[in-house]
Amino acid sequence: MEKSTTPRTVIVELCRQFYAQGWVSGTGGGISIRQDGRVYLAPSGVQKERIAERDLYVLSESGDILEQPASAGLKPSACQPLFFNAFRLRNAGAVLHSHALPAMLVTLLYGEAFECTELEMMKGIEGHGYYDRLRVPIIDNTAHECDLADSMAQAIEQNPRAHAVLVRRHGVYIWGKDWVQAKTHAECYHYLFDAAVQMSKLGLGLPTQSSKR
Amino acid sequence: MEKSTTPRTVIVELCRQFYAQGWVSGTGGGISIRQDGRVYLAPSGVQKERIAERDLYVLSESGDILEQPASAGLKPSACQPLFFNAFRLRNAGAVLHSHALPAMLVTLLYGEAFECTELEMMKGIEGHGYYDRLRVPIIDNTAHECDLADSMAQAIEQNPRAHAVLVRRHGVYIWGKDWVQAKTHAECYHYLFDAAVQMSKLGLGLPTQSSKR
Amino acid sequence: MEKSTTPRTVIVELCRQFYAQGWVSGTGGGISIRQDGRVYLAPSGVQKERIAERDLYVLSESGDILEQPASAGLKPSACQPLFFNAFRLRNAGAVLHSHALPAMLVTLLYGEAFECTELEMMKGIEGHGYYDRLRVPIIDNTAHECDLADSMAQAIEQNPRAHAVLVRRHGVYIWGKDWVQAKTHAECYHYLFDAAVQMSKLGLGLPTQSSKR
Amino acid sequence: MEKSTTPRTVIVELCRQFYAQGWVSGTGGGISIRQDGRVYLAPSGVQKERIAERDLYVLSESGDILEQPASAGLKPSACQPLFFNAFRLRNAGAVLHSHALPAMLVTLLYGEAFECTELEMMKGIEGHGYYDRLRVPIIDNTAHECDLADSMAQAIEQNPRAHAVLVRRHGVYIWGKDWVQAKTHAECYHYLFDAAVQMSKLGLGLPTQSSKR
Repeated sequence: MEKSTTPRTVIVELCRQFYAQGWVSGTGGGISIRQDGRVYLAPSGVQKERIAERDLYVLSESGDILEQPASAGLKPSACQPLFFNAFRLRNAGAVLHSHALPAMLVTLLYGEAFECTELEMMKGIEGHGYYDRLRVPIIDNTAHECDLADSMAQAIEQNPRAHAVLVRRHGVYIWGKDWVQAKTHAECYHYLFDAAVQMSKLGLGLPTQSSKR
Repeated sequence: MEKSTTPRTVIVELCRQFYAQGWVSGTGGGISIRQDGRVYLAPSGVQKERIAERDLYVLSESGDILEQPASAGLKPSACQPLFFNAFRLRNAGAVLHSHALPAMLVTLLYGEAFECTELEMMKGIEGHGYYDRLRVPIIDNTAHECDLADSMAQAIEQNPRAHAVLVRRHGVYIWGKDWVQAKTHAECYHYLFDAAVQMSKLGLGLPTQSSKR
Repeated sequence: MEKSTTPRTVIVELCRQFYAQGWVSGTGGGISIRQDGRVYLAPSGVQKERIAERDLYVLSESGDILEQPASAGLKPSACQPLFFNAFRLRNAGAVLHSHALPAMLVTLLYGEAFECTELEMMKGIEGHGYYDRLRVPIIDNTAHECDLADSMAQAIEQNPRAHAVLVRRHGVYIWGKDWVQAKTHAECYHYLFDAAVQMSKLGLGLPTQSSKR
Repeated sequence: MEKSTTPRTVIVELCRQFYAQGWVSGTGGGISIRQDGRVYLAPSGVQKERIAERDLYVLSESGDILEQPASAGLKPSACQPLFFNAFRLRNAGAVLHSHALPAMLVTLLYGEAFECTELEMMKGIEGHGYYDRLRVPIIDNTAHECDLADSMAQAIEQNPRAHAVLVRRHGVYIWGKDWVQAKTHAECYHYLFDAAVQMSKLGLGLPTQSSKR
């Protein structure tokens, strides 16, 4: 496996990849990695596909800044409290935030939660089998990203099998035990969101019903 | 930040990126940067993903040619008067022109202006919050690009919060205080245009209404 | 032809390409090559776009492990019995498995089999002409991938002209006499699946009827 | 302009680019360049994104083979008579053939010809202004590609302003006075085809009517 070995390298590499996939355009979205008691995080409002390793913040697990980016005039990503939710409540090793259009669109197609069943890609989400019912809670958006922290924490606690929280008219937070699992989860969730969007466009309804009825 | 440091380098780099995103195919579209009293501009009718740094014009802020491209037989982009509108009326540091299909399509879905509200990506446009009403005026196209200058200037003056003007059945002009902001604005506006197109395909209507009614 | 010369090189290269095309995201899908009595196969549950040549298994044609990946803790892809179906029943030289969204979606638009006629890209599938009726059987998905082996074998035997088997709500297996033909078949089948999806979205119906009626 | 300087280099480069855009997948499609009395052409049935400069045929303007590819067992592209139609009847310097899905789909949305008006990208097609009526004839497909030659020649002669011929349920041939213009024409035509497909999906009808009625 050509695994990039430091969190800084991985974040820079994944930000470029996520940008190419339309997940983090317009400086939105990003990814944070927690490793050996340190949290690596991009600054707020920067072009994600252009960050360099020296641009990252390093925080303690209690949120104190341990290392600053080389450039002045920055502040940590506004996603910080949301990322820390997953670190604290789920012991996540990596969390990413995506504005991908299919993630945003499913929040308009569903009510309180995205749900699906009997789609093979569900099996890429830890703890889920093909015949399960996969559920991702949808919380309402707020004017300021930090104000999402409480409702996101509540949604995480009420949905113990979910590895993601959708934010209405906004996007999605997705995590995993390490960056590899977070990325795999993200690819599977985005596939499922897109599947629901495409099925809806085809007049096939949403993938919420078992095909066995 | 791996910021490319000269306007020539940035223009060449962004033209390749915009081409890959479908914004400047068929020699259409482009980007101009104003820096230190000099305006950098691509020639008319050239393949944007293949221009080199030596192919650019450098103009004064009053539009006089200061430096010619290395190749003979070229003339400055037909977008020049449109780009200068944003430089003069908005003190922009960079302006780009895109023919992206979603930008063109929203001009067929909306009347006098593209409008949306309560979409997170609005926050990437300077001066806009989540609960605001974002508005981009739509002007009618003309047979010759230069003939758009007056109606574009009028639309800019009548829409002081907009950082963009759509042209019906054509595309969009988008600017920012520098190339970084212009690019961020462009990515956010294109996302919002695409969101409106996708919502319309899904039978969800256009994102013009608050979800709070 | 810049043909990569070893099966290990080809698999690594094609996995990156398939990932970029959305065929093998979320660790799903993959490709196996059989050459000179040896079968090259990726491990299970790894990110396909990041595998290296040393990560592959080499199996005998009876399925015994001849060479292990350099990394510990891996097991061969769960697709192994499905890949071997095509090696044994069709003497295939390469088999690939894709989760591409259009491949999954056509299994919701069709019943027992995907069918089409009079589409030029059918001619890229060995044994098919423009006026033929192309048919790809659709088998039902199972909770565990290995449980697909029998129904896939049956579908292969009942559809001697097909070089692929679709799996409902899951994806597709596609093969060829060597990796070049398997890849060509895969591109043609994916094109045909996408054509059916797009035609359906356009209200044109499915491409099952001759235009000559 | 970073113009690649030999026809061999340009063909290899453009084949990779066209493949990435979905125009020449599954060994379909391709491009031929005529320069200094010599015609450069890819072999039949090869993966277009993997051809090397030494893989090309060089033909005389009367179709005799002047240079063979390095690899044995090949034959010239089945598109040859179609490419020569444009060389002979229109004095084209380059012709390309694309199977892009939007090009195929418009042949199902239109009858005898693709038509549009008042779309800015029309201006990228030589001889067309914004208020003109752009027309691309659609000929019926045949079992064998070479059998298209006569009906394509007739369509070319009956549509003197078109730089392209669509083939129903198949794709499109597009040319220009040199490879730069052929590529620009191709990007503009593909944009217009896609615009018609998207407008149709949005329930906006086809772009055949002036907005001024």
